[in-house]
Amino acid sequence: MYKISLILILSAFLLTYSFSQSTDEHKRFIKNIYEESLTAHHTHQILQQLCQKFPRRLSGSKGLEDAVQWAKSLMEGYNFDNVFLQNVLVPHWVRGEKESAYFYNSKGKKENLTILALGRSIATPVDGISAQIIQVASLEEIPQLGKEKIEGKIVYISKPFAQHFIRTFEGYSETVQIRSKGPSEAAKYGALACIIRSVGTADDDYAHTGGLRYAVNVPQIPAAALSVKSAKKLERALQHNPEVKFYLKINSNTLPDKMSHNVIGEIKGSENPQKIIVIAGHLDAWDVGQGAHDDGAGCMQSVMAVRMLQQMGYKPKNTLRVVLFTNEENGIKGGKKYAELAVKNKEDHIFALESDAGGFTPRAIGIKGPDSLVQNLSSWIKFFPDFTIDKIVMGDGGADVSPLNKETGTPVGGLLPDSQRYFDFHHTHADVFEAVNKRELEMGTASMASFIYLVDQLGL
Amino acid sequence: MYKISLILILSAFLLTYSFSQSTDEHKRFIKNIYEESLTAHHTHQILQQLCQKFPRRLSGSKGLEDAVQWAKSLMEGYNFDNVFLQNVLVPHWVRGEKESAYFYNSKGKKENLTILALGRSIATPVDGISAQIIQVASLEEIPQLGKEKIEGKIVYISKPFAQHFIRTFEGYSETVQIRSKGPSEAAKYGALACIIRSVGTADDDYAHTGGLRYAVNVPQIPAAALSVKSAKKLERALQHNPEVKFYLKINSNTLPDKMSHNVIGEIKGSENPQKIIVIAGHLDAWDVGQGAHDDGAGCMQSVMAVRMLQQMGYKPKNTLRVVLFTNEENGIKGGKKYAELAVKNKEDHIFALESDAGGFTPRAIGIKGPDSLVQNLSSWIKFFPDFTIDKIVMGDGGADVSPLNKETGTPVGGLLPDSQRYFDFHHTHADVFEAVNKRELEMGTASMASFIYLVDQLGL
Repeated sequence: MYKISLILILSAFLLTYSFSQSTDEHKRFIKNIYEESLTAHHTHQILQQLCQKFPRRLSGSKGLEDAVQWAKSLMEGYNFDNVFLQNVLVPHWVRGEKESAYFYNSKGKKENLTILALGRSIATPVDGISAQIIQVASLEEIPQLGKEKIEGKIVYISKPFAQHFIRTFEGYSETVQIRSKGPSEAAKYGALACIIRSVGTADDDYAHTGGLRYAVNVPQIPAAALSVKSAKKLERALQHNPEVKFYLKINSNTLPDKMSHNVIGEIKGSENPQKIIVIAGHLDAWDVGQGAHDDGAGCMQSVMAVRMLQQMGYKPKNTLRVVLFTNEENGIKGGKKYAELAVKNKEDHIFALESDAGGFTPRAIGIKGPDSLVQNLSSWIKFFPDFTIDKIVMGDGGADVSPLNKETGTPVGGLLPDSQRYFDFHHTHADVFEAVNKRELEMGTASMASFIYLVDQLGL
Repeated sequence: MYKISLILILSAFLLTYSFSQSTDEHKRFIKNIYEESLTAHHTHQILQQLCQKFPRRLSGSKGLEDAVQWAKSLMEGYNFDNVFLQNVLVPHWVRGEKESAYFYNSKGKKENLTILALGRSIATPVDGISAQIIQVASLEEIPQLGKEKIEGKIVYISKPFAQHFIRTFEGYSETVQIRSKGPSEAAKYGALACIIRSVGTADDDYAHTGGLRYAVNVPQIPAAALSVKSAKKLERALQHNPEVKFYLKINSNTLPDKMSHNVIGEIKGSENPQKIIVIAGHLDAWDVGQGAHDDGAGCMQSVMAVRMLQQMGYKPKNTLRVVLFTNEENGIKGGKKYAELAVKNKEDHIFALESDAGGFTPRAIGIKGPDSLVQNLSSWIKFFPDFTIDKIVMGDGGADVSPLNKETGTPVGGLLPDSQRYFDFHHTHADVFEAVNKRELEMGTASMASFIYLVDQLGL
């Protein structure tokens, strides 16, 4: 009895000791990751290169394929064990030049407006469309007005961004319906074109583009977003004169699909090389600004997270795989192809972590997986320094890693940075390198590196 | 026995019921505060007025006193129960015009530098100071070089901002010693002037001013900060030629102290009007930029937090008192006078909450008070929506409320917003209204309003 107790006590002591030792080791290693990131600023440097050399990276563009080759060379230069491309056939929509919109005010003066055609929009006729514009406050108002009021007119949906949510992604989800569904909804009742107020949080003169979804069996009509400033100008004019005549010209074109590529770089696992932990962003971007927050930041964070672990001498047990997806913005073809090949090649994925919510101060990791997993991973918060990753929450991971989750059941996660400013920049000319704060960006890199380090060390 | 048990069970049930009922009520009320703040944007509107009408608010300036009168009128316009001023004698340092610095590079070309004289610096002679400049990496290196190497020269302290801390205020505390102590340290060994690399986080061309502290019985010498870009230029030149000759001209002047004012506005408590909860910022600012983050944001958040509670029909039990302190930047005379009068008038303060860390996304409340208080207040996190106030930590409250804590023992607190960008703007020409994000600012207002609501409802 006495002996057994002693052994039990001793075992408990050793267990506790080894546990707290490794807890301390993990904390120390993660502290080093943050310090390294915040002092070296390497993510910021490579993001500057990406944004300045390849600012335009829409699917089908030369800019995107040049960025693909550059990102491949970057990871080869870091001596990753394996760097390769996956072929992905992607849509090829082009905006064309000189899109424009204006109306005449009550004094007959022409008022130019700041617009961006929505992604996938068809062009107007060469001479543009000139018609009366009719304002609706929501998608729901369109069928209420019906064909009688709408036919032969341009529909303007004036719904402002739902600002009352703490997390702007919730406001975006609620508001973005006007962009994705508005054009077809208006077309059902005979509208000639559809204009929306930009789905963004700032009261500025940047229009926000983004994909629309044409419904099947409904005529396709041209569609564009007004900057909030232009939207307010139009709304004031419509208050004085509900018969305002509006002019819209869009010169877009949809060309045949083109070959693009997911860019992949790996450091092979020392114990389980066949088991894969993905860290990812998407390399494509809308054809305005430089795609700095969306999603140059996520791509460069992913590359640099693995590069940092490599430089810190870390030998992963499992394979760490950076994936820079193509074509998130208008098709998610990169994410779908990746999942398809993962199934076909019987790849064994442990986890996939995406950063696609901007280069802002990291706050949490959102997990798409069983409730019990979120609960378990919450115990990892103790490894993170205060004011970095403060919580693990249920989330949807990210658009590009979702197909992997769907096809293989692999749990996926997304970095959740502070969301307050994201929709000031998202899909606009303002999404440029200078809009990314160095320290916030690097904190994101460190958070991702730390999280995949923990997945590698502790498993899920 | 049976009866007693029943009563006990019933009491426990009622207690639990009433507790969870009030928990839900508090949560609902706080959710409303955030929604109201995020949709009305009133803090953003009044901050714009403050910044654009009264951009320059250094102690002793007309700008500050004009802002004092405007802020008083603002709160009178909101029908606060009691709006008044407290007289405070403040220092009156003026920068003067056309300060400048340059050196000649190895090709004999004049290289102009971006500088700001440090607050309280004396002027150079009318013709400026021309002398060899000697670079040191730290304060500690100055006595090591000694009189032999330093006498008759200008000392340049090149220490960069300590970027490795997660919270930039820790990096600031460590680095700012070169600004506060550098000039006197250099003067001890016969330096003619002292130049420092700006104490800021960004690699840009904004110089950061801020107060220096002249030691007693040490000659006072002129001192200025170089922008990081200018600092790097100088450092490159010094690598090629350690004998670089430097020119500095500062035209500052210290005038007699002047009368300024703390601006105070109250809503009287319905149950305990003599018990006071303070919510505060400081109205003065350095004489560059518009003092938008430092600390126009904190002032306007404090005013609007109380205004919102008033407009939501909330009747406080205790008196809610907005205090806009004067002279935080170069003396804390406003905070000291406030504490002195609180003692003299035997005022009964429950708590004071300051916002003086920028208009960024709020993350925590820092409390200066007993450990047990921090522990107890941590239970309030449950009342806050996710991704707002996530924790209660030990902190120092704020410079202006610290004297109240010191003199009366009143617990004080500070809003802790995300700190990553603060020292990009702090004390520079870049600290303007446009650098403040509307949603982040309003989240701060809502956090402050919610916290003082809880103090009023639940006590400490």
